[in-house]
Amino acid sequence: MQERPFAWPVRVYYEDTDAQGVVYYANYFRFLERARTEWLRSLGVQQDKLLYEQRRMFVVRSIEADFRLPARFNDELVVTAGLSGLARASFGIEQNIYRDRLDGELLCTSSLRAAFLNADTLKPTRMPESLFKE
Amino acid sequence: MQERPFAWPVRVYYEDTDAQGVVYYANYFRFLERARTEWLRSLGVQQDKLLYEQRRMFVVRSIEADFRLPARFNDELVVTAGLSGLARASFGIEQNIYRDRLDGELLCTSSLRAAFLNADTLKPTRMPESLFKE
Amino acid sequence: MQERPFAWPVRVYYEDTDAQGVVYYANYFRFLERARTEWLRSLGVQQDKLLYEQRRMFVVRSIEADFRLPARFNDELVVTAGLSGLARASFGIEQNIYRDRLDGELLCTSSLRAAFLNADTLKPTRMPESLFKE
Amino acid sequence: MQERPFAWPVRVYYEDTDAQGVVYYANYFRFLERARTEWLRSLGVQQDKLLYEQRRMFVVRSIEADFRLPARFNDELVVTAGLSGLARASFGIEQNIYRDRLDGELLCTSSLRAAFLNADTLKPTRMPESLFKE
Repeated sequence: MQERPFAWPVRVYYEDTDAQGVVYYANYFRFLERARTEWLRSLGVQQDKLLYEQRRMFVVRSIEADFRLPARFNDELVVTAGLSGLARASFGIEQNIYRDRLDGELLCTSSLRAAFLNADTLKPTRMPESLFKE
Repeated sequence: MQERPFAWPVRVYYEDTDAQGVVYYANYFRFLERARTEWLRSLGVQQDKLLYEQRRMFVVRSIEADFRLPARFNDELVVTAGLSGLARASFGIEQNIYRDRLDGELLCTSSLRAAFLNADTLKPTRMPESLFKE
Repeated sequence: MQERPFAWPVRVYYEDTDAQGVVYYANYFRFLERARTEWLRSLGVQQDKLLYEQRRMFVVRSIEADFRLPARFNDELVVTAGLSGLARASFGIEQNIYRDRLDGELLCTSSLRAAFLNADTLKPTRMPESLFKE
Repeated sequence: MQERPFAWPVRVYYEDTDAQGVVYYANYFRFLERARTEWLRSLGVQQDKLLYEQRRMFVVRSIEADFRLPARFNDELVVTAGLSGLARASFGIEQNIYRDRLDGELLCTSSLRAAFLNADTLKPTRMPESLFKE
C-alpha cells in the first residue's frame, strides 16, 4: 500500500554467517525484524514504551520467506518493510532484502502476519487508529 | 511419508528467549534446523563430511512457519521432521514443535523446501539415491 | 571445589559456526551457559520458577575465556561447570570445553563471577543456604 | 594508545534481549565484534577480502568482560575500540560499551587479545606493517 517501501541498511558480520560461508538462514529473520522495528519507529512506535508503559506488543503469527541468493560476509544489505493488509488487531507486512541498494540483487522475499496483543492477557487488542494512517 | 516422524528434544535456555519472556521468533528456525540435522544424521548423513569431503550441502530455498503458542524459558520442546516431497535435487520437509512431548501442545508448524547443492559451483546436484529410501 | 565437575554435552550446529568455518567466539558463551543451567538444575534449581515465582535470578558480573583450539561444525563437545568460590550473594564458576569427551582436546577455559539478584529491585540478595551444600 | 577511541553505535533489538528483560550476556560479545570490525574497516581492513583473497584472518585468543549495568531493549549503545598492545602476530584491544553516548553510563568494559592467522595453516602470521601505524 506504500508507494516507496521503508528501507533499512544491515551489514553482515561474522556473527550472521555460518560454515557454508553465507548468512545462516535463521538470521535473515533477525534482519527482517530490525527493519520492521525501524519502520515502526519511523511511524512513531517505540516498542519498549509500548511494552513497558502500555503493556502492548506485536507478535509474529506466521511468516514465509524465499531465499533466492545468499548474502555473504561483509555484504551491505537493504531490508524493506511495507504494509500489505490491515485488520483490527493484526496486519500483513511484505519485506525484501537486497544486496547493496534497493535496485541491487534481490536476495530474499518475505511476508508475515503480525498481531497486536495485550502483554498481560496475551489477547489480541485493537491497534491505535492512527498507527498506519497517512 | 513417514508414519511416525523423527523427533528431537530441545531445551529452551535464556539465549533463546527475548524481552517478551518467550522464545524469539527467529530462534524457532534454529530449533527446526537442529531437528533436521539430527534427522539427516539418523539417515546416515553427517553434514560436515558431506561439506568438507564431498563438497555437497543442503540449503533452505523457502520456509513458512505458523506460530500458534509461545514456547517459554526452560520449556522442554519436541521438534519433528518428516519428508513431504522428493525431487532429484530438492525435497520438502514438514516439521512441528510441541511442548513437553509429541502429544503435548502444538506450538509451531513449519514446512520448507531444501535443495542439494555442489558447494563449489552452488548448482543443484542429484542427491544420493539411497538417502530417503527405506 | 567439586572433585568431578558437572559435564554437559553440546553438539555444534550450523547456527553456531561462522564463515571462518569454526564456532563463532560469542557462541561459546551460549554453550557455557547451557552447562551452568543444567548444573544448577542438577542442584535443584529451575531458573524459570526462580524468576517467575520467587523473583530471583542469577546474572553474570564478569567473565573471562581463553580460546585454545577451535570447535568445528558437527563437533560433539563436553562443557563442565564447577564452583570456585562462594560469598553471600555471589559465586565463582570455572568451566572448560572439551572436544568429544572429558579427556579429549581442551578447547576453551573460562571463569566467571555470578551474582544472585532480586529480580524486581536488581539488588544482590542472599542465596538459599542449601544451594551449594553437599 | 589512541587519544580518542573509535566508537560505533549499536541499537538493542528484541533479538539481543532475553527473558530477564535485558541484553543476554553473550550478545555483548557480538556488539563488541561489530565495533572491532568497523574499527578495522576505518583502518582500511575489509575482512572479507582479507579472508577470501589473502587467506588471512583475525581470531580472538582470549577475552574478559565486566558487566556493570544492563543494556535494555531499544537502548542505543555506543561501543568503542582501541589498541592496547601490539606484537608481530597479535595485539590487544580495549573496549567499552556506553548507554546513549560516549559520556553516558558505562555498561561494560572488555579487553581481548587477538591473533592474525594464515587461514589455511591456522598458524600465526605477521600483520601488515601499515595496519596500526598513524
